Formats: sequence, structure tokens, C-alpha cells
Amino acid sequence: MSGSVLGDIFKISTWGESHGKGLGVVVDGCPAGLELSEEDIQKDLDRRKPGQSPFTTPRKEGDKVEILSGIFQGKTTGTPISMIIFNKNQRSKDYSKLKDVYRPGHSDYTYDLKYGFRDYRGSGRASGRETAARVAAGAAARKLLAELGVEINAYTSSIGPVSIDPENSDIESRMNNFLYMPDQKAAEKAEEYLTNLIKDNNSSGGTIECRVKNVPKGLGDPVFDKIDGLLARAVMSIGAVKGVEIGSGFKAAEMTGHEHNDFYQYSADGEIIKQTNNAGGTVGGITDGSDIFLKAAVKPTPSIEMTQQAVNKSGEDIELNIYGRHDPIIVPRAVVVVEAMTALTMVDLLLKQMTTRLEFIKKVF
Amino acid sequence: MSGSVLGDIFKISTWGESHGKGLGVVVDGCPAGLELSEEDIQKDLDRRKPGQSPFTTPRKEGDKVEILSGIFQGKTTGTPISMIIFNKNQRSKDYSKLKDVYRPGHSDYTYDLKYGFRDYRGSGRASGRETAARVAAGAAARKLLAELGVEINAYTSSIGPVSIDPENSDIESRMNNFLYMPDQKAAEKAEEYLTNLIKDNNSSGGTIECRVKNVPKGLGDPVFDKIDGLLARAVMSIGAVKGVEIGSGFKAAEMTGHEHNDFYQYSADGEIIKQTNNAGGTVGGITDGSDIFLKAAVKPTPSIEMTQQAVNKSGEDIELNIYGRHDPIIVPRAVVVVEAMTALTMVDLLLKQMTTRLEFIKKVF
Amino acid sequence: MSGSVLGDIFKISTWGESHGKGLGVVVDGCPAGLELSEEDIQKDLDRRKPGQSPFTTPRKEGDKVEILSGIFQGKTTGTPISMIIFNKNQRSKDYSKLKDVYRPGHSDYTYDLKYGFRDYRGSGRASGRETAARVAAGAAARKLLAELGVEINAYTSSIGPVSIDPENSDIESRMNNFLYMPDQKAAEKAEEYLTNLIKDNNSSGGTIECRVKNVPKGLGDPVFDKIDGLLARAVMSIGAVKGVEIGSGFKAAEMTGHEHNDFYQYSADGEIIKQTNNAGGTVGGITDGSDIFLKAAVKPTPSIEMTQQAVNKSGEDIELNIYGRHDPIIVPRAVVVVEAMTALTMVDLLLKQMTTRLEFIKKVF
Amino acid sequence: MSGSVLGDIFKISTWGESHGKGLGVVVDGCPAGLELSEEDIQKDLDRRKPGQSPFTTPRKEGDKVEILSGIFQGKTTGTPISMIIFNKNQRSKDYSKLKDVYRPGHSDYTYDLKYGFRDYRGSGRASGRETAARVAAGAAARKLLAELGVEINAYTSSIGPVSIDPENSDIESRMNNFLYMPDQKAAEKAEEYLTNLIKDNNSSGGTIECRVKNVPKGLGDPVFDKIDGLLARAVMSIGAVKGVEIGSGFKAAEMTGHEHNDFYQYSADGEIIKQTNNAGGTVGGITDGSDIFLKAAVKPTPSIEMTQQAVNKSGEDIELNIYGRHDPIIVPRAVVVVEAMTALTMVDLLLKQMTTRLEFIKKVF
Repeated sequence: MSGSVLGDIFKISTWGESHGKGLGVVVDGCPAGLELSEEDIQKDLDRRKPGQSPFTTPRKEGDKVEILSGIFQGKTTGTPISMIIFNKNQRSKDYSKLKDVYRPGHSDYTYDLKYGFRDYRGSGRASGRETAARVAAGAAARKLLAELGVEINAYTSSIGPVSIDPENSDIESRMNNFLYMPDQKAAEKAEEYLTNLIKDNNSSGGTIECRVKNVPKGLGDPVFDKIDGLLARAVMSIGAVKGVEIGSGFKAAEMTGHEHNDFYQYSADGEIIKQTNNAGGTVGGITDGSDIFLKAAVKPTPSIEMTQQAVNKSGEDIELNIYGRHDPIIVPRAVVVVEAMTALTMVDLLLKQMTTRLEFIKKVF
Repeated sequence: MSGSVLGDIFKISTWGESHGKGLGVVVDGCPAGLELSEEDIQKDLDRRKPGQSPFTTPRKEGDKVEILSGIFQGKTTGTPISMIIFNKNQRSKDYSKLKDVYRPGHSDYTYDLKYGFRDYRGSGRASGRETAARVAAGAAARKLLAELGVEINAYTSSIGPVSIDPENSDIESRMNNFLYMPDQKAAEKAEEYLTNLIKDNNSSGGTIECRVKNVPKGLGDPVFDKIDGLLARAVMSIGAVKGVEIGSGFKAAEMTGHEHNDFYQYSADGEIIKQTNNAGGTVGGITDGSDIFLKAAVKPTPSIEMTQQAVNKSGEDIELNIYGRHDPIIVPRAVVVVEAMTALTMVDLLLKQMTTRLEFIKKVF
Repeated sequence: MSGSVLGDIFKISTWGESHGKGLGVVVDGCPAGLELSEEDIQKDLDRRKPGQSPFTTPRKEGDKVEILSGIFQGKTTGTPISMIIFNKNQRSKDYSKLKDVYRPGHSDYTYDLKYGFRDYRGSGRASGRETAARVAAGAAARKLLAELGVEINAYTSSIGPVSIDPENSDIESRMNNFLYMPDQKAAEKAEEYLTNLIKDNNSSGGTIECRVKNVPKGLGDPVFDKIDGLLARAVMSIGAVKGVEIGSGFKAAEMTGHEHNDFYQYSADGEIIKQTNNAGGTVGGITDGSDIFLKAAVKPTPSIEMTQQAVNKSGEDIELNIYGRHDPIIVPRAVVVVEAMTALTMVDLLLKQMTTRLEFIKKVF
Repeated sequence: MSGSVLGDIFKISTWGESHGKGLGVVVDGCPAGLELSEEDIQKDLDRRKPGQSPFTTPRKEGDKVEILSGIFQGKTTGTPISMIIFNKNQRSKDYSKLKDVYRPGHSDYTYDLKYGFRDYRGSGRASGRETAARVAAGAAARKLLAELGVEINAYTSSIGPVSIDPENSDIESRMNNFLYMPDQKAAEKAEEYLTNLIKDNNSSGGTIECRVKNVPKGLGDPVFDKIDGLLARAVMSIGAVKGVEIGSGFKAAEMTGHEHNDFYQYSADGEIIKQTNNAGGTVGGITDGSDIFLKAAVKPTPSIEMTQQAVNKSGEDIELNIYGRHDPIIVPRAVVVVEAMTALTMVDLLLKQMTTRLEFIKKVF
């Protein structure tokens, strides 16, 4: 089934395998008249690129994007934008010995269950490399949202047992460490934690938080298309994500109604404001203009050199050590992917919101 | 926008407001040849019905379903199944005084932001009553899945600070208390906790867990249609849900790769099995036949009689007490809704999976 | 599969069988703020109703529509509009003898091929009665389009060998005869032709033309969603339609480029106008503001009392006479259905067009 | 809006402009296990390629396809298949003088109406060159259908006033002339007709017929997804097509029920057969196994060197001669495009049909 297509109006179709010729995305439904360049896209791709710190795979992936269509004289034309990233650094031989092995935590077994066989080179389509296409499309979505002032910023909120202290965090400073943490002290501790794990050939999980500022009001549709649900789906579709929460999230389950309800009041200039934001920017699945706040749980990198119990296709139990170039932690490189999925979800809802009122129709026609 | 439609093949379209003439659902794409009766649907609806315990609203809603189409001689014909539940017990006058008020934790304000005005009677389309249509459609999905042996069971896993002890839980016993908890001791404590909250005119949040047994293998599609993502969206689209996790969920963030990876081995009869199930039944977004396990966080009922700070549309800050018939806890009635959303997600992926291999095509044609 | 759902934004889901409890439609995605009443819907339904002339079945179908949701204080709320028409006059016994027979020109055989069995009462879901739900939804679409001045008018352009003379036609006069022909002389001839056919227990085909005035500019999307294609699909999905053409249609095949091209010029008030309209209002699949003009070919009613060669399910060739209450001509009752399908197609494209330019976004947000 | 995406399960997303870097398509949802090579695709592309006869543009377009993903060891993996055709022969300067001109019969004006501006080089996305991507995707669909024995063959049935004589036609012989006509005598006359038109700098319309043999039974879904409607949409979405008919088509309008109904009988070996095929292979929108037969009307090439009346964007009426390399007739090159659109429509319905019966589910799971 066509599981690589996302969105109803701003519709993206991604393709590509880790060790094929390349990967890319076609964006259909991007409004005309948006200034968009390869630089806009590359900027986000560079944040996802490996090989930039001791905590990501030393693999070099150029991840150089090329826009093949849909732009004319620097602006989107309204027709499909095709973007491609050619693979440069495939070393297929590394992987041939894994072709009959089912690695724990990987989708080798499930792809065979689903399709009967699989492209086993570097996990094929199931590789985290697939997210490059999401980031490329997300960069276009983000550029469009920026025209309305929307800002989307994610960061690492924990690595294993090390969490940031919100009181001690400054989102602007997240670039100051390899881990994208906004709390430098926590970053130091996390780096130490990771360094030890690397020595053990082990890996770590973590969490990512994402905050959206200047949110347009009224985004999200009743019942199944609540923005909560669509964000959860978008973020949970990132390979390693095992949990998503919005606003108070799982804490809400322990609260009383009086604690959880965000009380309203009028601001000095007559705007309705909330005294708290447990809702995380959405009530009844619809944005109210306050910040959207979400959090994702990311599982540890499954590829580790430690000995693991696995099986092969010949019916044998085996012991497995996965040597190679792997990220000991997925989280920092996934930060920009969370932003991309948030942007893609929001831009589609933004475009849909234009169609919800007769008075809007009369403004346009 | 059309946010009340869900599914690609098993496609449902729900409608209705709390205080309108009724509510219902059209299921298009249910395969032909399934035995399906009003009793099959009613059974699940009855589990959602209020008025059955001290911990749900004393409102009487008959919630009697009628099937209007798509069934002939006791079996589905393959054409749309329309189901309707007429509203019996609307008391619209109760609500007229709320028409200019924005209640905290409710979507009054966001619906006005979105649409310019709203049906304010009993929260209109944003009422929890909307979930009756989900449950009706979900019952049909569940019936279809049962043909393959699939079992979906959810239960209350915590109420406020009171959690079940998995060691002390028996899922069969969840019907023995008003709260759908599989741990009777926890249920007693939770009832006491709730009784006190009711005295204070307050309400409580909680969590729901859902486990699926006999899961068909290979469900879920790469990239955006991972079963994780689609389940998260489906469950998070339930009004009060603020967080969803699958398998190890947020705990995964604190684990190492060696702890988290589910090691494989061959069973005595040559089946590949996992020694643990941190993945919660899905790897790479695709089921491997092990149990699906998910958990949802439910916020406290926003309607409380305690005094809250709110606003009206005339620009005034007000104090608000919401009198009326409200559930002090949403969780027990939401248990069957979580099951319904799980069933709807799975049945759509099941039907899609049929189309993924040339060899399957040759089996059918 | 879910073949009873149409539209991307203005999305309709129809249901119901000829001899079930009723039929209806859920419209999801209708913009908020539109005045809409049961009278608006009933007006179009009454034009489709049988029993009004010697040339339609004498069956009485009340076809009384009831709106169950989505309207508050006379206006659409933006949430799903559910409309229902209860069946009043089912006489199921009439049909029992046809349950093992495959009638020529009917879908008895193909439904069995598809689903394995069928609701054989009055053709079940395959009955022309299904179009009542389309007309109900179409009436809502038409009401919305009327807010922008759009007018959609269809009429009978031929019955068997009798065609209208465009020179002698006045669209306003089409209500003056039972056949919805805008040329009274042609109508007289056609009535005579039909009267003779009825004596022979035979039936006739015909054509319907539809013209849209005050067409919004820019509707239709490149490549697969050209308005031409979407109109063709919508109209061809009406049971008896075997051909659709737009503008010059099949005549275009015999023309030269110089004859067919519609030359442009500026009007006195500076508008770009076309000297001809061979294009039928759409170039490159996008409207240019000139009238949309389309034509549909409708096959003869397949239910005739004349002896036909048929088969039964027991493997026997049989001779068949279909007694009962049938329209000797489908065309006049299908006129309003063509209008409905045109309106539904246009309204969905209208809403989509709002999302195609950055400058439109800035007008709304 | 995303008008370049087609299909629900076998979903294609095309992109590219006439004078951009290239064009291509992403096919998502192609079942795994199908043998597919660049040669399979190239074979169909070569039939569309210009420069092969006196009746097509002498432009040389290599139209060399490259498959970038979704194939492993010669077989489809079930993940997206990305195909690209780089543009070789762009001569953008030729077109710069047309940037402020609205050419009759072209979409220059409507693209500006829709998007506010346009890529004017070689008609941009509106170029017939866009159909190369359809043909590439169609070739994959055709390969899949061939696994079930399905054969799709289209041919030129008329050029201007010259029609083939079905009695004198042999579909195998269509390759024997430049015009893809199965009647060699008609082809000679048509070549003469075209040769004269070329001298006048004029162009011609024509018709294409398409016949599908070995049609799987039960394809097409009730109401809006009748195969008739979906084929009409698919074929009508080809730029120059102005009309589509199925089976008896517009002739049905002049027939009586007794003439039009296809009588059934049992064949010697107990199969239900039809004595005629006025239905064109579909009854009630569902295939019955008899040949599908459809016909499309193609308008004349709008680009002609003869003087035409046009306008420019500065508000002036102008006279226009379009010099350059144009096909004097679109029809022969569109033949393979009609086949492609037919294949794409059928393969999507084939996959959907797998999901329509409980018994099919039990065959697969």
C-alpha cells in the first residue's frame, strides 16, 4: 500500500532506499508564489546530516539536495516540486552478510513478513536515511508557515536518564552542544553518559520536545482530524518514536479537572488568553493561538556492537554483533525531523482551514 | 474540512451533535459476507452508555442503534452500512446560558475561532457523545477482525494517582468494578479517590491500556503509515486523550539499546519469537504477530462545578460553575472507544495488506 | 471498497438501497455560515421524483428529506450534514422472483461477480433510486455556488432520434413539458415517439446537456484533476450514462486547429474574452470564466416488458419479461442528477482553488 | 492543490515541466514481487517519443527513463518506485517571446488565472510532455495486469474526417503506419489529409479507441467509483481529450432498450456470455469479463503557424503565428497515453477488488 504519501492538500510522496541511487520527495499542492530555493532546503538537511559530532555515525553523506521542478524565477509555481538527494557513499558489501539475518530492533523480519522479501542493503527503505526526504519537504512547509510568522523549534529534552532542567534552559543555546540540548549542564552530563555507552558498544534513547510559536488560530478539524491526532501520527511515524504527548501529556492523567483546566481571561488589550497551557495549544483538536507543545520518546539505536541473540532465515538461533557506522543516539539528528513532521502537519491544516467558512470564500473569490 | 472521515478502504464517515436529532456513521468499504447484526453493535455501545455507575453522568441515553443499509439476510453486502442512534434525552434549555461563555478545557472558544459560530447545545459536535458513532463503526471492524481470531481488550490502568499493579491484574476481571480496572484492589482505592473528588465537585484524569492478541502479521506500511503512527492518530483523536505510547513508550527513552532490543529465537515448533516485547508488537511500523500494546493518557473531565475563571464573548472575565450531569472521570467510558479506534485502524491496514504482494493477487484472482 | 464517497474537501458519503429502510448522504466539509434548509434540498429532490408524468414510473416515492445534523439556527456549522430519505413504498414481494435471474442491462450478474451475493430487492444499491442521495448533496453544493452567482442548468437535448434545435430552444421553457426539453416542438415529437415505445413495452435513450454560467476562474488542477476529467467521472458515474463530452466534444476530432482554437480578444471594458467557446469553458483543465458546457449520453431503461433472452443462476437460458413500474426513459429524471454531479465537482474544486496561492492565504489569515 | 496524484492504492505522483530539468513519477503501492525493468518502461515510452514520423514534431527527446528506487534484484519491493526522465533538448530561448502572450487553445491564460504567474517555457507543466510520466507509470501497471493475462490495446480510429472501417481493420497491423491506424487504407487517406493540412500550417483532431481483453471480473465499485467513471476521468485528464464514451457511447442515446440490452446466454462450457457488448464490458460500473471498449475524442493541436487572433498581457489584441516544432496531430502519440491511463485505472480497481469479500481475506491470511 501507498504508505509513503502524506497530506491531503500539501501532499508529499517520498521514495528511496539507504543504498539505492538516491532518495527524494515530490511535494504536490504547495501554493504558488512562495520564494523557495535549494538553500532553504539544504539548511534543514544539514542539521540532519551525520558525521558532525562524536555522537553520530562517522559516515559521510553529502545529502546535497537538488530541486528538479515546480520552481520558476525563484518562486513556487503551484505545480509539483520534485527534490532529489543522490546517494554518494553506499558500501553495499558491508551489508551482504546480514541478508539472511533478522536483527533485533530492526524491521528485517517484519519487512519479510509483509512483502515476502526485502532490500537488505543498509535496511533499504526502513533506514533512518529515509527521513532526509521528510526534512526536505518539511523545509518547504516551514518556509510557507514562516510567511505567517510561525516558528517551529525542537530540541533534545533528555538522553537516557539525563533530562534538561526547563528552568535552566535557553532554546537559543541548543546549537552550542552536539546534542541539541538547550541546557548546557545537562548536555555535559549527557555527553559523559553517552561516551561511556559508546565504550560499551551500547546505545541510548532520549526525548525530543517541540514548541511552535505564533500559531494560526483555528487549525485542526473535529473528530478524526484533530491537530493532536495528526501531530501524533506524523511524529510517531518517525521510525524510532515510541510515544507522543501534547501539552500536559501523561501528567494529565494524574491531575484533577481544576488543576488541568486552563483558565481564561482577557488581556489588557482585549485578547482572550489562558493563564496556563496544559492543553499544549489545542482544545477540542483546534488551535487557539497559544504555543503548541509536544514531546516524543525515541528508542535507543537498535544497531549495537554488543552481542545479541538473533535468528537467521535458515531456522537457526545465532549470536549477533553489528559492526559498522552507527549513531549511538538517534535523538539529536531526529530533532529536525520532528520539526519537519510538525511543519508538514500544520501546513496541511492551514490550507484546509481556508476552506471552512463561507466568508473566507468571499474574501478570495 | 472533512475531518469526520477516517480510513482509506474501510472508510467511516461520522456525523451528529450532542443535542441534535441523533448521530451516526456510514461505513463504506466493509467486505461482503460478514455476519453483522444490530446486537453486535449494541453490545459495544452498551459498554459506553452512561448512567450505569456512580462514576458516570446519571443522564439516561438510550443509545439504541439502528442499521439502515448494507446488510441483507444477516450479512454485509459490501455496500455502505449506515447506522443511526437517535437522541432521546436532549434538554437544550440547560445549555442556553452557556452560549456566550467560553468554558475552560472545552472547545467553545476554538470552535468559534474556527467556524465563526457554533452549536452550543451540550458542546454540539465536540461532545464526547460523538464517540458513540466511533464505537458503532468499531464494533463492525471488531467483528471482521474476530473472523481472523483477533482480540482487542482495553481497560483502565490508572485513575489519578492510583495505578493497577500488573502483577495483580486479571483482564477478565475488569468488568467486576465500575471503573473497568483489572486489579480489584486498585479499583477500590480509585473508587475512594473519586468519591472524594466528587464531593469537591472536581474530576480526575487516568490512563487506558489496550492489548491486541492474535495479531495478523505484516500490518502497517512503511514511512507515514506505520501502524504505530496510525494507532497514535486514531487514539489521540479521542477528545480527552493527551498522550499515546506503544510498547515501552516513554520508558524507551531511558533505556539502552541492549535493554530495549527484543531478542529473537526460534520456538520449539520453529516459529520466530521474541524474548521480550518492548516494541509493543510493531517493528519498523509493521506487526510481527506479537501482541500490540498501547497506552493512552486521558485528561480530567473539564466540566466541574468548582469555581473557575472564564470569559464571555462580551469581553468580560467571569467566574464559572458548571452545574449539570457530568462524568467525574472520562476513563471508564472511553475504554471501549480506545478499542474501537484500535479496531478501525487495524481493519483498514488488514485490507491494505491484501494488496501488497503479487502472490496475494494470484490467490484471489 | 469505499466507492460511495466523493470529493476531497466537500466530501460526501452516500448510502442506501432501493428497498431498504431509506437512503441518505453525509456531507463533510461544507463551509460554515451557509444558509441551508430542508426546503433547499427538497426543491431539487422534487425534480427527480417519479410519478409526475406519463413518462416516468407511476411509483409514488415521497422522497421527503430530513436534515439530521450540521445545521444550527438555519446555517451550516461546518460539521457533517447528515440527510436522510426514508423509503415509504417498498414492495419487496414484487422482486423475489427475480432473485435467481440475471436481467440484461442490469447489474444483477456483476454484483454477484463482485460480492458473491446481492440484495436483489429492486436492484438494491444499484437502483437509480441511489441518485436521490446525490441530488440531496448536490442541492447543498448548488446553494454554496449560488453565493458566488454560479448557475447550473441541465436539460434534455434528445430522446431517441428526436433532438432539440438549439436555434429554437429556450432553456427557461424546459419546465413546460414532461421531458425537460427547452424546445417545445421537439418535446412534442419526443412525446409521440415515447408513447409509441410504451405501447411496444420498449424504452428509449437520450442525451442531457448542462451549462454553467458565471463560472469562477481558475477552477481545476493540472494533470489528473483537470475539471474536464473530474466532471466526466462525476457524470459518467451516473448509472445509465455511457458517454460524456465537454465543449466541442467528439466534433473536435473532425476539426482543424484553426477551426477549433477559440481566439481571444479584449472586450470593450478590458476583459479577455473568447470569440467562440469550443473549449466548453476549460483550457488545460482550468476554467477561464466562460460557460462550462457538457453533454451526456444516457442509455435506454434496461427494464422492459418485451421478451428478452436471459439466464438464471441454475445454469439455464430463460426468456424474461420484466413487468412492473419502470420509467420508459431515464433522461428527464436524470437532468437534475447531472446538475448535482456538476455542482459537487465544482464546489470541491472551488474550495481547493482557495489553497493555491500564497496571496490567498494572506487574505484569509 | 495536489492534482498530480492519481489512484488510491496504486498511487502515482507525477512531476516536471517541459523545459525544466526533467520529469518523472513516483509509484507508491505497487505490489511486491513483480519483475520490472527499465526496458519494460522504455518500451512504452518509445511509442510516445516524438521525431519518428513526418506527422510528429521533429524535436528529438531522448525520453530515456531511469528507475531510482523500489526495485531489488529485478523485482518490485513494495516500496515507492521513482522514475525519472531527464530533459535533454530544452531550447528555452525559443519561448521567451511568448511569455506575455496568451495563445488560443493553450492554457497560458488559465494558468495565470489560477496561479498568478506561470512557467512559460514550452507550456511548462501544461505541456503534452507531461504525459511521459503517465506512460512510465502506466507501463508498470500494464506489467502487473499482464500477470493476469490482461491485454490493453489502443489505436487511432479517425483523423479529421477519415475513419477506420472496423470491418477492414486488424489491430495487429496498426504499427504498419505512422498513424497507429489498424486499417491501412484509412491510414493512407489520413496521411494525405494530414500532408495537406501541414502545407496549410494547420492541424487536425482525431479519435482513439482502446480495447481491453481478458478483463478480470468484478472490477469497479458502486456509485462514484464505477469503472466507467474512473476510466472517463483518467482518459479525459489527458490534455487534448474532449470526450469519452464506453461501449455504445453516444449511440446508446438513439437506441431502444430492446436494442441496447445485451442478452445473456450460457456458452457450451457453462459460462455466462453476452450476445452483444453494447455495455462495453461494464454493467452497473462493474466488469463482467467481456472486453472493455472505450473511445476518446482528441482536439487538434492548438499550436499552428496560421495567423490567429490572440491577446497579450498588456491589454492588446494581437495577431499570432506560432512557429516551432509541433505535432500536426496529437492522436498517434496519445495512443499509448490512453493505454497507460486505462492500465492505471484498472490496476487500482484490481487491488481494491481484493478487499471486497470476507472469503478473499481468508484466502490471503
